[in-house]
Amino acid sequence: MSSKVEKLVPVPERVEADLDELARIHDPESEGWTRTVFSETYRASREWMRSRMVDAGLQVHPDGAGNLVGVLPGCDPAAPALITGSHTDTVEGGGRFDGIVGVLGALEAVRQLIEHDVRLERDLLVVDFLGEESNEFGLSCLGSRALAGELSAADLYRRDHRGTRLGDRYTAFGLDPSDVLTASGWARTRALHRYVELHVEQGPLLEERDVPIGVVTAIAGIERMLATFTGRPDHAGTMPMGDRRDALVAAAEAVLTVRQEGCGAPVHGVATTSRLVSEPGSPNVVPGTVRMQAEMRSVDVDWLSAAQRRLTEEIRLKAGAYGVDVDVEWSCDNECRPTHPAVHEVISSAADSLGVAWEPVPSGATHDAVHIARLCPMGMIFVPSRGGRSHCPEEWSDLSHIATGVQVLGRTLVELDRTPG
Amino acid sequence: MSSKVEKLVPVPERVEADLDELARIHDPESEGWTRTVFSETYRASREWMRSRMVDAGLQVHPDGAGNLVGVLPGCDPAAPALITGSHTDTVEGGGRFDGIVGVLGALEAVRQLIEHDVRLERDLLVVDFLGEESNEFGLSCLGSRALAGELSAADLYRRDHRGTRLGDRYTAFGLDPSDVLTASGWARTRALHRYVELHVEQGPLLEERDVPIGVVTAIAGIERMLATFTGRPDHAGTMPMGDRRDALVAAAEAVLTVRQEGCGAPVHGVATTSRLVSEPGSPNVVPGTVRMQAEMRSVDVDWLSAAQRRLTEEIRLKAGAYGVDVDVEWSCDNECRPTHPAVHEVISSAADSLGVAWEPVPSGATHDAVHIARLCPMGMIFVPSRGGRSHCPEEWSDLSHIATGVQVLGRTLVELDRTPG
Repeated sequence: MSSKVEKLVPVPERVEADLDELARIHDPESEGWTRTVFSETYRASREWMRSRMVDAGLQVHPDGAGNLVGVLPGCDPAAPALITGSHTDTVEGGGRFDGIVGVLGALEAVRQLIEHDVRLERDLLVVDFLGEESNEFGLSCLGSRALAGELSAADLYRRDHRGTRLGDRYTAFGLDPSDVLTASGWARTRALHRYVELHVEQGPLLEERDVPIGVVTAIAGIERMLATFTGRPDHAGTMPMGDRRDALVAAAEAVLTVRQEGCGAPVHGVATTSRLVSEPGSPNVVPGTVRMQAEMRSVDVDWLSAAQRRLTEEIRLKAGAYGVDVDVEWSCDNECRPTHPAVHEVISSAADSLGVAWEPVPSGATHDAVHIARLCPMGMIFVPSRGGRSHCPEEWSDLSHIATGVQVLGRTLVELDRTPG
Repeated sequence: MSSKVEKLVPVPERVEADLDELARIHDPESEGWTRTVFSETYRASREWMRSRMVDAGLQVHPDGAGNLVGVLPGCDPAAPALITGSHTDTVEGGGRFDGIVGVLGALEAVRQLIEHDVRLERDLLVVDFLGEESNEFGLSCLGSRALAGELSAADLYRRDHRGTRLGDRYTAFGLDPSDVLTASGWARTRALHRYVELHVEQGPLLEERDVPIGVVTAIAGIERMLATFTGRPDHAGTMPMGDRRDALVAAAEAVLTVRQEGCGAPVHGVATTSRLVSEPGSPNVVPGTVRMQAEMRSVDVDWLSAAQRRLTEEIRLKAGAYGVDVDVEWSCDNECRPTHPAVHEVISSAADSLGVAWEPVPSGATHDAVHIARLCPMGMIFVPSRGGRSHCPEEWSDLSHIATGVQVLGRTLVELDRTPG
């Protein structure tokens, strides 16, 4: 290892200043640090991000899918490029670290490379992927999905609860939907060598084990459920209990069934109902229709598919007992994706060479890495999340852990640069 | 009985034509025959109603609380007046008969009195009460409540889900909130003799028993519940099931508990959850907060209060097991109100004298009659509802039953006119 590479030690204060500045750009109407995809707040934050990339010494090329791609040119422009990054959008009421640490951390790694004159052979692409968080269209990772060629024309016809099409949201955000669909072109033309993503764990394992670095083994598959319960609206004061077909009672049974399935997972599996919308909602009326939004995740593929089947059957059975029909639709948000052993090995060696303790951990959350894995071997570095909290204002990762993560990321990039295709 | 009075036979086609014309005025954006209080649709429908009252021969005086009061002058203007009526607003997705039959039926009774030259001693007031149906302010019977002096200044500060105050909705509708609060003045100055209201049953009993007329014994009390479940928002992919404080799971248990209590009522008791709103609602986040809207009704006062206590305790207990706090607030929408035996007796005698079969029935729904009972003795006449359906587009009452109800109403008014104060 050259002495130059050994000097690649991130400056925590710089990362902290960037985290603070970005955190200031959030929706004042919402709790926490809300910066949802396609919002005006998000648009403003990405203007800031673009200028921050330029300040760090990157050449910024936004692509047709809305990703911000910052390029640090290498010695050999023809060599397959390294790629790192994450996202800067947040969920409604979200926090200051999820995704953000991977983009701002990569910028600090780039600054280190430039300041210590460590020239990589390969181009290094730092990407702020568009809209990684789940949205009302039921499609997370919009930018990385498009880059990997996994966004279809049919997806652009998905509608949010107001009936607006995804394609129209792209247009309103200044992106041409046809450019979104063809954005995978550049990623295929421009060969990619390895992808590595730094991220906060968002779970409690690293903190519980008091380990600063997690090397991700696999990213859980996500199956999303939309169920529509159809009973009968009746006067809430006059229709006897036994004659009702109450859609909300059937949906309440389903919420408990979803939880029960999640509790039965043998390894890393969870199941969550996030929303019930009952109609007509008037205090005088027995709910006639309820729409339910739920999901299941696991790194155990067999359990996940069996649990989906059981859940669908049990929800139907219980609803039927209340005279309520139910239509259950599943869509696979992403399949379970193991990280690449070669990248896993480089990350853990980098941590070892820096004297940093690490453990292998699963990822219950999905990441842009799932989709970029279609383009090249992929790996992920986790830093601890306080109390395992995430997607909430209390989300927190210590600056010292983030700095350690950035250091491991920098060392990993240097090592990956040297590994043959 | 004079031969004039025996000629008071309603013309079904005239009632049908009025029902059809009013039904045309509904919100085109909503299902069914939606005409909610304070809406522009409601405003338009009441313009129509006012002119229909004038056409029927009434002198129309809108009062400060937004009630339309049509007066048929009697021989003795100093005698305490008869009062009848109901409402013409509907719930979201509601039907064509609930309330409407009582107002349009009273108009036909008035036309009969005029055409057959039956002069009443007392003034007859036909009232279309403002906003009888439940609304987002959790306060049904706005007009009759104001008339009875049961609407308080504090009520005007109630807010809907958008945060708008009830007082501001009155103002936007062209009513001065201070006039609303003092509207009870005219009802107290102008002594009232008896109130009788014609209404569709909204329940299945009359149809099941094949009886055309129900004479109401009591109107169920309504207790409304607003519960707020406070858990903790967490990442739905990473927080292990056992570490969660899922507010929606706790609320789902509460929905089932509400139903269970309703099923346990010894006589006419029902319990309904009409709405759950979970936050943040994002597919990736364990719900941290849920607001629940429910109600219980019964004509059995003792059961109702005991069931409220049990329900509150059980909801708290079950939520606690999931680490979720719950704040339960009850408000009495109206107390159980028996009809007045003297009015009940006149209605049933009128039915008997017309050779119409009738049965005593409870009212699970609330009515303007509950509030007008504060001003004078009150009774109600029910006609059958097909399948007991109400507050839905399928709500239906046969024209022949409505005509029978109008005939019983007319005969009842004539008889009540003769009873001493």
